[in-house]
Amino acid sequence: MPPPNVSKTVTFAALHAFTKDAFYAAGLSDADASAGADVLATTDAWGVFTHGTKALAGYLRRLHAGGLHPRGVPRVVAEGGAWATVDGDSALGLVTSVFAVQTAMAKAKQQGIGYVGVRNSCHFGAAGYYSWLAAREGLIGISMANDIPSVGAPGSRGPITGSNPISYAVPAGRYPPMLLDMSTATVAGGKVYAARMRGESIPDTWLMGADGKPTTDPSGYPQIGALQPAAGHKGYGLSLLIETLSGILSGAAFTWRVGNWMWDDGKQSTNHGAAFIVIDTNAMLPAAQFAGRMEALIEEIHQAPLADGAAQLRVPGEIEWERYDRSMTHGIPLPEDVVANLRKAAEITGRPPNWLK
Amino acid sequence: MPPPNVSKTVTFAALHAFTKDAFYAAGLSDADASAGADVLATTDAWGVFTHGTKALAGYLRRLHAGGLHPRGVPRVVAEGGAWATVDGDSALGLVTSVFAVQTAMAKAKQQGIGYVGVRNSCHFGAAGYYSWLAAREGLIGISMANDIPSVGAPGSRGPITGSNPISYAVPAGRYPPMLLDMSTATVAGGKVYAARMRGESIPDTWLMGADGKPTTDPSGYPQIGALQPAAGHKGYGLSLLIETLSGILSGAAFTWRVGNWMWDDGKQSTNHGAAFIVIDTNAMLPAAQFAGRMEALIEEIHQAPLADGAAQLRVPGEIEWERYDRSMTHGIPLPEDVVANLRKAAEITGRPPNWLK
Repeated sequence: MPPPNVSKTVTFAALHAFTKDAFYAAGLSDADASAGADVLATTDAWGVFTHGTKALAGYLRRLHAGGLHPRGVPRVVAEGGAWATVDGDSALGLVTSVFAVQTAMAKAKQQGIGYVGVRNSCHFGAAGYYSWLAAREGLIGISMANDIPSVGAPGSRGPITGSNPISYAVPAGRYPPMLLDMSTATVAGGKVYAARMRGESIPDTWLMGADGKPTTDPSGYPQIGALQPAAGHKGYGLSLLIETLSGILSGAAFTWRVGNWMWDDGKQSTNHGAAFIVIDTNAMLPAAQFAGRMEALIEEIHQAPLADGAAQLRVPGEIEWERYDRSMTHGIPLPEDVVANLRKAAEITGRPPNWLK
Repeated sequence: MPPPNVSKTVTFAALHAFTKDAFYAAGLSDADASAGADVLATTDAWGVFTHGTKALAGYLRRLHAGGLHPRGVPRVVAEGGAWATVDGDSALGLVTSVFAVQTAMAKAKQQGIGYVGVRNSCHFGAAGYYSWLAAREGLIGISMANDIPSVGAPGSRGPITGSNPISYAVPAGRYPPMLLDMSTATVAGGKVYAARMRGESIPDTWLMGADGKPTTDPSGYPQIGALQPAAGHKGYGLSLLIETLSGILSGAAFTWRVGNWMWDDGKQSTNHGAAFIVIDTNAMLPAAQFAGRMEALIEEIHQAPLADGAAQLRVPGEIEWERYDRSMTHGIPLPEDVVANLRKAAEITGRPPNWLK
């Protein structure tokens, strides 16, 4: 069911074309513009609107201001048997991340597993997209990134780590890939900010206030307080593993050294880090056997007894894949805030498409 | 500070010797008995008493009943450049896991990263021990395992996945390794069971009752209800990644196919799965540079502002390493339930040490 605040429904092709044209007009190559558009339009097709084309205007702003290099070329600067370090050359984070996960996929196909650390990247959108690129080729993809601190730790007064997302995608035979994309905060900062914009209060597990205590008031976010880590020390602990693999080991910036891609003047590189771990399941098990075992796991979950009042038991990604299928058939139901941001992007390009007018 | 219910304080050496002798008497080789004792005594030295020598009597029971093979020999049954599959031959899970993480460490030293999947293992104690073996040699260790379902999913009436622990250890220069060991449930089942044994109620985020709804009553656990996943769909999603890497990809049993190591008659192999991913940081960065960056991260956290009422901000593992140092200096303060289980173990061996009498 589309969210209640849908203001435009657009085809995947039209959203992809507008986004690609915008990147191309900002100076990206045709291939890079297309790669970036695919990340954002696919994310919207999954219904993950906080991380899709909503960010396009912000990326265009950085591309014009110079903090992102339209013709930046991500490259492998060091590598070994099953690993590589990619320098993103301050290209669009989406472009760098596609290159990096493809590098990890190639390593995995050779060695069974591959790790690629990334530096000089920027915000990379939805981590799940890159994991899915791997799963689409029968590989397990694990993707993660750091960001400027916005999430507290147990006992902290303010932010300690970024929202540090992690995602995975696992090919699942006749089913769509099992797909999880989560921040290590209780909720994404975008949800808190959206509540602030709507003037609503929030559950007391989302945010800590200026004193480091839980609060239901999002009005100061993100300037005041910090998101709460998911499950307390567990989310905090995972975020530090992600910081290590994405930021420390790749040679990228980490914690407060990361640039603020959303709120600064856009002129500086942010030096975000990211990491991609890919496993080639075909090395360990025949494809049919792995697929059969995944199908058995998923069917077992689908057939498990339900809690009182629950309609269905799902595996990770099932909701996103259902939305994806509806998006491809009936168009993508863009919420108001996404449309507003797309209009900002169209102002930058000077070429608003008919469907956005 | 030792827990209030300490009933015996014992040196690491004495606890290790008793445990090793017990394994040796059960038929393990000297080396395997010593390896297993080191896992359990170290876990107690960290103060993680739910996963240390408390389980010794249960392991001895399985070794005598035949479900664990005293002279089982874990071996690599398939491998490639950066991966291997280990068959544990139903040896003690601790012995198999030490072998498997060492195999992953060797792969990582060659290729930068290594993945080892394990089948025909059993309960492996504290995941953090194996991660630490890697960190002790300057490598990043990530360890995980599956188990028979005890944790529900959002919308389920009963258990869907195991508590599926994951741990990591990262070498940190002049500081002890950053070390996280967490289950993907809100809390370990042992904590719920301990509350049941004490007749106490529990927070409503720990357990779901027979109807799949949150409950504060642990009296039916583990026969009735299920643990709640940490942070809802996030813990559930992570547990399925762990199930995939530990159980599906290794060829081990998964979910309900895993044997119940604690409650069955001990005669059957449980075919637990596990997975170890090791990364050699020296491949990507000079050792001094990696250490310096980790030290900067840790110092930044130590110096961050504190929430009202908080005494200290810690990185994962700091509490365990403080306990470890105290344990090595002043002895390990064993709680009553551990001592009671050690007495059961001594009944099995017939040779209670003086300190346990």
